[in-house]
Amino acid sequence: METLSSLKNSRVMAWRSLKDRKGRLETGSFLVEGIKMVQEALASDYPVETLLLQEGFTPAAPLPEHIPAFLLPPHVFSAVCDTKTPQGIAAVVRLQPRPAAGPRLIALDQVQDPGNVGTILRTADAAGFDGALLAPGCADVFSPRVLRATMGSVFHLGLSFPAELPEALKDLRSRGYAVLSSQLDGEPFFERPPIPAPFVLILGNEGNGVSPAVQATATHRFRLPMPGRAESLNVGVAAGIMMYDLIR
Amino acid sequence: METLSSLKNSRVMAWRSLKDRKGRLETGSFLVEGIKMVQEALASDYPVETLLLQEGFTPAAPLPEHIPAFLLPPHVFSAVCDTKTPQGIAAVVRLQPRPAAGPRLIALDQVQDPGNVGTILRTADAAGFDGALLAPGCADVFSPRVLRATMGSVFHLGLSFPAELPEALKDLRSRGYAVLSSQLDGEPFFERPPIPAPFVLILGNEGNGVSPAVQATATHRFRLPMPGRAESLNVGVAAGIMMYDLIR
Repeated sequence: METLSSLKNSRVMAWRSLKDRKGRLETGSFLVEGIKMVQEALASDYPVETLLLQEGFTPAAPLPEHIPAFLLPPHVFSAVCDTKTPQGIAAVVRLQPRPAAGPRLIALDQVQDPGNVGTILRTADAAGFDGALLAPGCADVFSPRVLRATMGSVFHLGLSFPAELPEALKDLRSRGYAVLSSQLDGEPFFERPPIPAPFVLILGNEGNGVSPAVQATATHRFRLPMPGRAESLNVGVAAGIMMYDLIR
Repeated sequence: METLSSLKNSRVMAWRSLKDRKGRLETGSFLVEGIKMVQEALASDYPVETLLLQEGFTPAAPLPEHIPAFLLPPHVFSAVCDTKTPQGIAAVVRLQPRPAAGPRLIALDQVQDPGNVGTILRTADAAGFDGALLAPGCADVFSPRVLRATMGSVFHLGLSFPAELPEALKDLRSRGYAVLSSQLDGEPFFERPPIPAPFVLILGNEGNGVSPAVQATATHRFRLPMPGRAESLNVGVAAGIMMYDLIR
């Protein structure tokens, strides 16, 4: 296995650039860190391009032989990784998600907090949803913070990145999907008539909610009741409550 | 209004210490930042001891005259505040929560992430819960990050800090509360028989769940179904799903 010891090595520099969206778009790849995320990547449909190991790290299972692997001294491995105390293994993965398809989808409209985006994908995966549409303005799914918050669920969901979310939702609607918007002026969510799949649940921006152009595409508009005194719910929590109620 | 211009002023130093648990315990007070949080503090049962204003900040409404107020130049105000871009107003509040009481309670067992603790309190408030028991080992409710994540809900809930959570839960149980533990080996949550109030819902540590000594006090043990491929849910999301289902 080849060792790369210099921070100025061109490959090392390319891997370091994957922390930023620009670097990911230029190379068409992203970096996952840690044992679980690398296992999830290897088990997924995403092509794993390269494995990176910190000197001294011993994999629990043999690594796939057809994937190029490099050994990095600790200071180089740390520079490539985003986590403060990396586990000693990382993988460069081709940015090649399968598109969102299936009867149960979510759509994120400018959900900006990386933790919220990651948590929503994790919950969608747990609830058995099929995929997510992510509008421009959402935190980048393939950024280190979102990837961590997904806990591997990024590899389980179809993911689409429509340039115009309203157009994508209109298209789903024309194909028979119920388009569900969560907004403060909607109808009480728990009093809704049954909504059979296929459906797509829209979650909006942390401060401003679902944007008007996206609201306009909805077949149903709902709000969660708040019998207490809080004025709003965290969007990740609201997403979880609604997704779990929709699958009951 | 007195102006305090020195970072070495003893009062300024005391306020700066409120970012840390040690400083809060020594002074018996905590600091809230921003217009909304100060309004919530003033409207609450918590005694507000002091108001802090950045030079140039104009309150939208007159400040209560009986509360001492100080004017701070920007560099001093920023040093007292935890937020990167403070809004110009903060308040020193007496650490004097009303105890958790009422028919719908939550109990947090070593929930360590400040964002999770704050989000759970916000959701509990939204869902109309009455209060929260926080075991030692939880993120400190009165730390800047938890306070921010509560979005003001910290002022709406009763809060108790039992030294021994199992003892506190046994006491609630002896007073007729159903004690509900959320754990991966529990019964399917959505198939439960109706559980009338009073009840207390226990949420556990992000990695390890509800600790065995706390599980042992439960009258009911539940798990949320995960028909998809994720192995777990974020504790704040799980809390929201269960709280909202319990109040339906």
